[in-house]
Amino acid sequence: MTTVKGCLITLEGGEGAGKSTVLAALRDHMVAQGVRLLVTREPGGTPLAEAIRSIVLDSTLGPVCAESELLLMFAARAQLVRELILPALDRGDWVLSDRFTDASYAYQGGGRGQPSARINDLEAWAAAGLRPELTLLLDVPVTIGMARVEGRSAPDRIENEKTDFFERVRRAYRERAAADPSRFRIIDSSLGIEAVRKSACAAVDAFIARRKGGA
Amino acid sequence: MTTVKGCLITLEGGEGAGKSTVLAALRDHMVAQGVRLLVTREPGGTPLAEAIRSIVLDSTLGPVCAESELLLMFAARAQLVRELILPALDRGDWVLSDRFTDASYAYQGGGRGQPSARINDLEAWAAAGLRPELTLLLDVPVTIGMARVEGRSAPDRIENEKTDFFERVRRAYRERAAADPSRFRIIDSSLGIEAVRKSACAAVDAFIARRKGGA
Repeated sequence: MTTVKGCLITLEGGEGAGKSTVLAALRDHMVAQGVRLLVTREPGGTPLAEAIRSIVLDSTLGPVCAESELLLMFAARAQLVRELILPALDRGDWVLSDRFTDASYAYQGGGRGQPSARINDLEAWAAAGLRPELTLLLDVPVTIGMARVEGRSAPDRIENEKTDFFERVRRAYRERAAADPSRFRIIDSSLGIEAVRKSACAAVDAFIARRKGGA
Repeated sequence: MTTVKGCLITLEGGEGAGKSTVLAALRDHMVAQGVRLLVTREPGGTPLAEAIRSIVLDSTLGPVCAESELLLMFAARAQLVRELILPALDRGDWVLSDRFTDASYAYQGGGRGQPSARINDLEAWAAAGLRPELTLLLDVPVTIGMARVEGRSAPDRIENEKTDFFERVRRAYRERAAADPSRFRIIDSSLGIEAVRKSACAAVDAFIARRKGGA
């Protein structure tokens, strides 16, 4: 059993970046080291937040303005933070989340043009100011990512967006990573999945070692 | 056909205040005068907003924190304003809404303790700063209102709240009305429904006459 205190690690990236595969690998890797780990996803993770997820991804509900999309993401996040993540961190557990607030900066900020100041405000009160201690950004050129997901399953409302939307999302993700290098690790996700998996696990190992050293 | 420009009129009030009956009466009264009228409700009024309504009132979805509830209300409102209300006003139509932003100040502010400054901010960007020109507040003591709705149908998540919650909602509504007397008309809804209906129609007639005079 690790003796370090609980903390939040997040996995971010655009479509076809390999998040699902890496998430499963990281989970196994961390649990094998005795980390008490809660795995969750955004939007979602609680009954309310999963219901919001199903609304926000539904292509049949007619128009969704950028403001509504942003508010729905934070409505789901507010509940997830209070019901699951903060209690887990208080118990000393670790939390690994498939996306978190960085995704709002990338998708609703970069993608939809919602102002950063607005997202900042929501992060402060709706997400209780909670920031991950480590964020792995799986970065892949948009054309490669989109080719990977093509034909996978019926695209949801956001997956239906065009290339330039995902280019803006990617740019916003990379800018956030560049602005906060102590928290972000960028992983080149255009490489084969085995290389990506290894890089992700190595980044988490280094983080755990640093944290143990500092504890 | 009336020659005055379109505007937004809202109907507010707590549980058992008689909103539904008064809404129907006002609609008939205004349409009979040739007002081109769009009637809507909150949360709801568009496919997305109605889906949000069904989530927010669902008692089976587990905990809903005050922050999520506030964000969901504004997510629904943001879509309603952009998809329905602003286009109607731009066409010169009138809009009559069963609840609007004042309900967030009353329920999520007064009832749940969310700060007014937070609601102010959301009103400015999510609701596009739109304020009704006339708001009828159907005011009834909580015990009378609750007795009226008792046994009506299975209570939703918000109707399941306790008396002190509804007392805070009522106080917040009355404070908002007192602070903005040029917009609000308080109607004593403890009177018989016929008297309430007459007061509501008279308030709208006076508003229409004033608006025609000023046009």
